[in-house]
Amino acid sequence: MSRRDFIQKSTALAGGSYSLMLALGLLRPVEAHGFELEGSAGGQHVIILGAGLCGMTAAYELAKLGYKCTILEARDRTGGRCWSPKKGSASAEIGKALQIGQFDEGMYFNAGPSRIPHNHALTMHYCRELGVPIQVYNNVNEGAYYFSEGKGPLSNKKVRVREVHNDMRGYTTELLAKAMDQGKLDQAMTREDAQKVIEYLRAEGGLDIDKLYKASARRGYTEEPGAGNKTGKIADPHRLTDLVSSGLLDPDFYNVAEYTYELQMTMFQAVGGMEQIARALEKKVVAQLKTGSEVTHIQNTDTGVKITYKDKLGTHELAGDLCICTIPLPVLSNVNHNFSSDVSRAIDFTPYISTGKIGLQFKRRFWEEDEHIFGGITHTNNELTQIFYPSNDYLGKKGVLIGYYNFNEKAKLVGDLSIPDREKLALAKGTLIHPQYADEFEKSFSVSWHKVPYSMGGWALYTSETRNSHYQALIKPDKQVYFAGEHTSYLNAWMAGAFESARSVVSAIHARVSGQRLTYPVTGKG
Amino acid sequence: MSRRDFIQKSTALAGGSYSLMLALGLLRPVEAHGFELEGSAGGQHVIILGAGLCGMTAAYELAKLGYKCTILEARDRTGGRCWSPKKGSASAEIGKALQIGQFDEGMYFNAGPSRIPHNHALTMHYCRELGVPIQVYNNVNEGAYYFSEGKGPLSNKKVRVREVHNDMRGYTTELLAKAMDQGKLDQAMTREDAQKVIEYLRAEGGLDIDKLYKASARRGYTEEPGAGNKTGKIADPHRLTDLVSSGLLDPDFYNVAEYTYELQMTMFQAVGGMEQIARALEKKVVAQLKTGSEVTHIQNTDTGVKITYKDKLGTHELAGDLCICTIPLPVLSNVNHNFSSDVSRAIDFTPYISTGKIGLQFKRRFWEEDEHIFGGITHTNNELTQIFYPSNDYLGKKGVLIGYYNFNEKAKLVGDLSIPDREKLALAKGTLIHPQYADEFEKSFSVSWHKVPYSMGGWALYTSETRNSHYQALIKPDKQVYFAGEHTSYLNAWMAGAFESARSVVSAIHARVSGQRLTYPVTGKG
Repeated sequence: MSRRDFIQKSTALAGGSYSLMLALGLLRPVEAHGFELEGSAGGQHVIILGAGLCGMTAAYELAKLGYKCTILEARDRTGGRCWSPKKGSASAEIGKALQIGQFDEGMYFNAGPSRIPHNHALTMHYCRELGVPIQVYNNVNEGAYYFSEGKGPLSNKKVRVREVHNDMRGYTTELLAKAMDQGKLDQAMTREDAQKVIEYLRAEGGLDIDKLYKASARRGYTEEPGAGNKTGKIADPHRLTDLVSSGLLDPDFYNVAEYTYELQMTMFQAVGGMEQIARALEKKVVAQLKTGSEVTHIQNTDTGVKITYKDKLGTHELAGDLCICTIPLPVLSNVNHNFSSDVSRAIDFTPYISTGKIGLQFKRRFWEEDEHIFGGITHTNNELTQIFYPSNDYLGKKGVLIGYYNFNEKAKLVGDLSIPDREKLALAKGTLIHPQYADEFEKSFSVSWHKVPYSMGGWALYTSETRNSHYQALIKPDKQVYFAGEHTSYLNAWMAGAFESARSVVSAIHARVSGQRLTYPVTGKG
Repeated sequence: MSRRDFIQKSTALAGGSYSLMLALGLLRPVEAHGFELEGSAGGQHVIILGAGLCGMTAAYELAKLGYKCTILEARDRTGGRCWSPKKGSASAEIGKALQIGQFDEGMYFNAGPSRIPHNHALTMHYCRELGVPIQVYNNVNEGAYYFSEGKGPLSNKKVRVREVHNDMRGYTTELLAKAMDQGKLDQAMTREDAQKVIEYLRAEGGLDIDKLYKASARRGYTEEPGAGNKTGKIADPHRLTDLVSSGLLDPDFYNVAEYTYELQMTMFQAVGGMEQIARALEKKVVAQLKTGSEVTHIQNTDTGVKITYKDKLGTHELAGDLCICTIPLPVLSNVNHNFSSDVSRAIDFTPYISTGKIGLQFKRRFWEEDEHIFGGITHTNNELTQIFYPSNDYLGKKGVLIGYYNFNEKAKLVGDLSIPDREKLALAKGTLIHPQYADEFEKSFSVSWHKVPYSMGGWALYTSETRNSHYQALIKPDKQVYFAGEHTSYLNAWMAGAFESARSVVSAIHARVSGQRLTYPVTGKG
């Protein structure tokens, strides 16, 4: 039997080639994401613009290969959008009063990325390699709420996620099972297969023996079961028409977020705040790093690049062989450069999302203590859009929840408010859901990314059209300048986009300098 | 406006009476589960049989009230089924060779309860009160597998949970949306409402604009998206007929476990093993505790109870005023007693489930490193039934996974095997799913609860018939003897059943002794 035969046979047996091939030593394990670069750096100096995750990762990987790197960062801190405001954190948004974080010691929230999908292999890889401890981000919580402002019988009420999920599973499977039973659907299915699907639907929807959806413990109890004679009491389902008229089936609430590939459990966060990833990277590149250095000009020259930047001491010029520019496009749009017209257009016309979050510190974790909500998300159709409950320090005393996390028009509206008015809005709307806000609130900190200097937006938004135009201009170097960051990936808004693009440009640069193609280890299927 | 009016008005406004009433100080917060007992213990001596969670909790709460307690425990350890075998743990099942835990330091698995539902208020309460740190048990993981032994095209293969979930959501919503579109279903719904439901179905199933289910990123990629030109590649869905003929819609796989009220996220486990809860309770009752003391006779006398037990030194008699008997029924059935015939029948004829688990220690966490599986459950239709991946020490070096967790006939079959043969079976069947087992396996430890002395089963199984007969006999005292444990609750198999029943008997005893009814704090809706 040839090796190929063996593999094919064993694969059929074991039901998946990937693990088997790994086990047979034919593939290297995914864990080994360590970059395998060969060839010489040739004494090249790479200037990296921006000390976010992408810029620092590029410097970290290039340094391993012997490149000389300089990172210029406009802010006094690294990490970019990967930021976890806490006591003393400063924020001066455009046109707003300066905020200085007033949270207690140890309290924080993730103003930027707050979730790591388990299938983002590179993010997981760097947490492992950099020794950043992770913990589960509990994105799925059936005990959180839907809260729909409106005129229906279930409007302006807290409805547990589990009630909507299970009622809708019940009604839809009941309808479908009935239709299939009565042969009302044209299906390319044998009667026997249809019967199996019907049985599946009965289990999926929690239907009774007659395939009807009635009261179900899945949707929770009105009196919990206990010892002795406490059997537990179950309420009737919400009426389908009530769910519809109360807006709970509207797009605001479409139960899809947790179905999305990136948002499927298991999700993670860095222990102590997501910016711990940035802190760990910073330690690796601190020797190459110049913070407080705002880039004003980027020039391709005949043989290299010339970067002009200003810091406390004045204006400086820095010459290098190559450049990696990770500056977000709305910021880059206001930097002088001599890029090609295609690149220039891409920089000027790629929109970024408006998005904002507010962290609210409370005296006690009433969502846990009073309402049994441990992590997860409450969805609303008002300006808040979402409330994120913290996935850390469960059963602790105090806590910071994210009082709103909104996008687009809602984020613009809230972003336009003064800092105190944002807090007022978050409290007023939040109190409708959690009246405990009134007694328990302590301090807030809000971030509207489209108003934050050196960010000027949440993340790049592409259409299929601009993927073919602007995007194509940005994923090629403009002479000596390489563009990188989540905006040069298909993983927009995710930290993985930063990591993937850092590797991609490091790889491209090394191919150019050394003529060596890189060997990427196999990335496993998510 | 009267207070009642105010509450009703505010409730309508805030959409839920519970939190509001809490906020208004009209209810005490659920957090305050601290027992509020009034009245005197009157110098009564309560003998508690069994130092599992229920027995220790009863002693802990009675001691707070001034009762004298003695706990007799047959084993040399406390905790009963709440047990996390580790290095040095001993197990001598009936008819089996002695096992001594060989895991590395710090490695363990939860042989008994391994999950805390967020809605089990008392379990959460005791973790808080006893200072037991908790972490998320990741019961939902779309990245784990279904593995169906059989003859279908998807049999004997690893199929990611997300593929089955999303394909079935797609097919069923497509069928239903089509039927509704064509008016094929008789529904008490306006055309407008039906249209909203159809739009909901489109989102729920991930259907395209024509309401067809096609390739979807929700079910994962065959090539992950990344930077530059890595758009990501999506595979076609599995065919519905293939899912059916491969057994993936069979009862073995019914996608319901995570819909069940108790199994809905958020779930927790105690950091360092679930038995940390028992360890914390033990510290509170150590002065009342006699381990290695096997009860042989329980006698109601005219004025109290007389318990006979044997330990290393011989046979002893202990007299008390009252007794709480938490001995599992199959064990109690072999203890001499003078209970009523109803109670005696209940003890002898209430069946317990057969169930078993095996912990497998591996050199490396290949499920994370190679396959991106972080916690969660792989389901099979073979003897393994389930594989539980650990929800602790993510990204660590080694790990212990639960190689099978089975019930009833499958558990009996595996329980009948010798200890080495259980390991062989777990490895042989597990290797079909994870070929890495061959290289990475180190040590095992198996527990078949129906073979474990002083347990003799997993948990009590009641039918609606026996709830009305046997169960009723057990939830009343037999003269001076009160029965307690998960088998006297509606929360069978759960630690919460032990806690609820402990409180229930403490409450009943205190009412009898002091004539005082207890004030239970309000328990919030899960």
